[in-house]
Amino acid sequence: MSARPFGRDDERVASIRAALEASSLDGLICALPSNVLLASGYWPVIGTACAVVGPHATVVVAPRDEYDFARAGWADAIVAFDAGSLENLDPVAHDIREPLRSAIARAGIEGARVGVESGPQHEPSTYVGAFRFGDVLGDLLRQEGLTPVPADDVLSHLRSRVTAREHDAIAGACAIAQRGFAAGSSALRPGVTESEAAERFRAPLGITAEASGVRRAGGYVFAMSGENGANAFGAYARSTSRRMRDGELVLVHCNSYADGYWTDITRTYCLGEPGERQRALYDAVLSARDAAIASIRPGVRAAAVDAAARDVIASRGFGAQFKHSTGHGVGFVAIDARAHPRLHPASTDVLRAGMVCNVEPAIYVDGYCGLRHCDMIAVTEAGAEVLTPFHERLEDLVLHFGSA
Amino acid sequence: MSARPFGRDDERVASIRAALEASSLDGLICALPSNVLLASGYWPVIGTACAVVGPHATVVVAPRDEYDFARAGWADAIVAFDAGSLENLDPVAHDIREPLRSAIARAGIEGARVGVESGPQHEPSTYVGAFRFGDVLGDLLRQEGLTPVPADDVLSHLRSRVTAREHDAIAGACAIAQRGFAAGSSALRPGVTESEAAERFRAPLGITAEASGVRRAGGYVFAMSGENGANAFGAYARSTSRRMRDGELVLVHCNSYADGYWTDITRTYCLGEPGERQRALYDAVLSARDAAIASIRPGVRAAAVDAAARDVIASRGFGAQFKHSTGHGVGFVAIDARAHPRLHPASTDVLRAGMVCNVEPAIYVDGYCGLRHCDMIAVTEAGAEVLTPFHERLEDLVLHFGSA
Repeated sequence: MSARPFGRDDERVASIRAALEASSLDGLICALPSNVLLASGYWPVIGTACAVVGPHATVVVAPRDEYDFARAGWADAIVAFDAGSLENLDPVAHDIREPLRSAIARAGIEGARVGVESGPQHEPSTYVGAFRFGDVLGDLLRQEGLTPVPADDVLSHLRSRVTAREHDAIAGACAIAQRGFAAGSSALRPGVTESEAAERFRAPLGITAEASGVRRAGGYVFAMSGENGANAFGAYARSTSRRMRDGELVLVHCNSYADGYWTDITRTYCLGEPGERQRALYDAVLSARDAAIASIRPGVRAAAVDAAARDVIASRGFGAQFKHSTGHGVGFVAIDARAHPRLHPASTDVLRAGMVCNVEPAIYVDGYCGLRHCDMIAVTEAGAEVLTPFHERLEDLVLHFGSA
Repeated sequence: MSARPFGRDDERVASIRAALEASSLDGLICALPSNVLLASGYWPVIGTACAVVGPHATVVVAPRDEYDFARAGWADAIVAFDAGSLENLDPVAHDIREPLRSAIARAGIEGARVGVESGPQHEPSTYVGAFRFGDVLGDLLRQEGLTPVPADDVLSHLRSRVTAREHDAIAGACAIAQRGFAAGSSALRPGVTESEAAERFRAPLGITAEASGVRRAGGYVFAMSGENGANAFGAYARSTSRRMRDGELVLVHCNSYADGYWTDITRTYCLGEPGERQRALYDAVLSARDAAIASIRPGVRAAAVDAAARDVIASRGFGAQFKHSTGHGVGFVAIDARAHPRLHPASTDVLRAGMVCNVEPAIYVDGYCGLRHCDMIAVTEAGAEVLTPFHERLEDLVLHFGSA
């Protein structure tokens, strides 16, 4: 074990304690990287780490080669373990048993009733691939005399309101993304393929981050041009080898990360001066965006924010072409439409200060284009704080080229 | 439902049937994208799809916006479903219930004993993030009257031997990676940062693939130079802002994918003519590689292949610096050291034709460098087939620069 080098996030410790108390849980043991990040500030790489939260302490169990990342978090203690060796091929569940027992003791939850991950989860990618314990973690805890209780709802509500420190980390991720949009948009022009364009937005995300003290940064960017943009409403985006043409719209979607905090940002550029039809689409989407943002403040129903955007788009005659909800929680997760707060017609969520979500009004016109404008928004006592204040107006989104 | 447009992989269908029979299972239901790919040729994006295998048919349940990807596989039937809508915020488990019931009936496994995913898994990333069902899929199957039985071992052994069609897909992924290495190595030079260099290897992976008929391709590349290369033995790699210097070694690690089939490739380049110490390291690693590859054929113990490489490196005095096993299965998974066949001193695996693995002898010298050479190898009746036949010799790995 080693002491934590950085101060802990007391705001987060308090929110977890309150949530556990409200659910009559003595502690929390989680292994999904997003939840380990939530509970300890440490964003695991491979997925073999656990966070153990109890009344005495927050302890992380981390593979030895992720020790530096664990130290960058604020757990009260770290128990390192070796996953595999040249002497044996034991499963990770074997390697982690003793360290987990030690963490449980240190956290003060021997024999306790502890919240665990159980049901469906949408987890961002951390690396090439990810380890998941599956059933074996719950089995281990039962063998140690604990009573694991599904705590997915507790975790999902904890994730929906960020602390001041987490807010700043998400804002930092947005600032890095802004550099990607600046570099990428300057490379957009007729003749470039979607894949090539996406690379130009993506490349700066990992490279420029270190200057900001970020340890792991990168992202996924997709460019969808012309009629291909009309497909961008689905659960995933995809760049193709399609070459962009003069006068077309290009929808650029970015999910980037910085040390585990994610963004969800879309801008739609026009390659040259927009025509009347394109202006009408831009005006509808940007007006819907303004209406949604203006409606955001603590105490407002999330469904009312969805309605604010939807009503504008419907009033312009594009209602049927705004095919998804106006937004969802972002930060610990990138693209889960069910993350709170859900800005959806059927949502029962109510906005609270500290929530972070996207606002993504859009119009998808089959065979013609997709136009989406997706910002990251923090709910503050004063209203909406736009974390992505760039390329916000039509004039920023219209790209002009020389006579070449 | 719709008919499959492409011929099914009869070799895979037969191997699954034989494995189920040997385990007294009536069918198989899996949802991890790598296992859906194994069972049906369809590589899901988000992770909400399932493959349902029974005596009558292989049926996939796919979200509607992944329908084209499902059609590119060889399932006998596809049942599409809508995940979410503007009318409701039902969980995916609700959306999938009826389609799953229909797939179970079509596959002929009502009330049956079916193999399912249960324990620890190492799954490659498919997208920005991934949905996982967690406990809820097993619950659903029990509610439908089926008896789910953990089948992780069955699946992991099925993944370890590929069919002729899968072999060709993996070889195709290696050919795409080769283009990344060609482009990237030409951009390596003193003064470039590791992150910038990695981007130059990575960028072609997605862009050049479409010419080969591949729908989704990309990858992760890490460059680790000088003394940072000594850290490359861990479970993950990482590029930094470190600038490469004249005369240094640069270890470049790549995990790329093409439609769900993965590579694991490393080359180590020398920035300028190597000195005597560097030559000794190269000679040890490349000789170990040759010895391991020469030892590979059906019937050989995987531990003997590890020994073939390890003995060479030990005989040169670097035994303690070859810190990991000689290889592991690759193809459906990228970086799982426990994937069969495991070329490890403690492995009990025996090589069989159709296995695909990496061979990655290496020497890590603290404070100085890392030198790893990692190839993709298919085991054939004739011995080892090298799927990554490029940058194989010292003269390919030494980079010369102009007088600038």
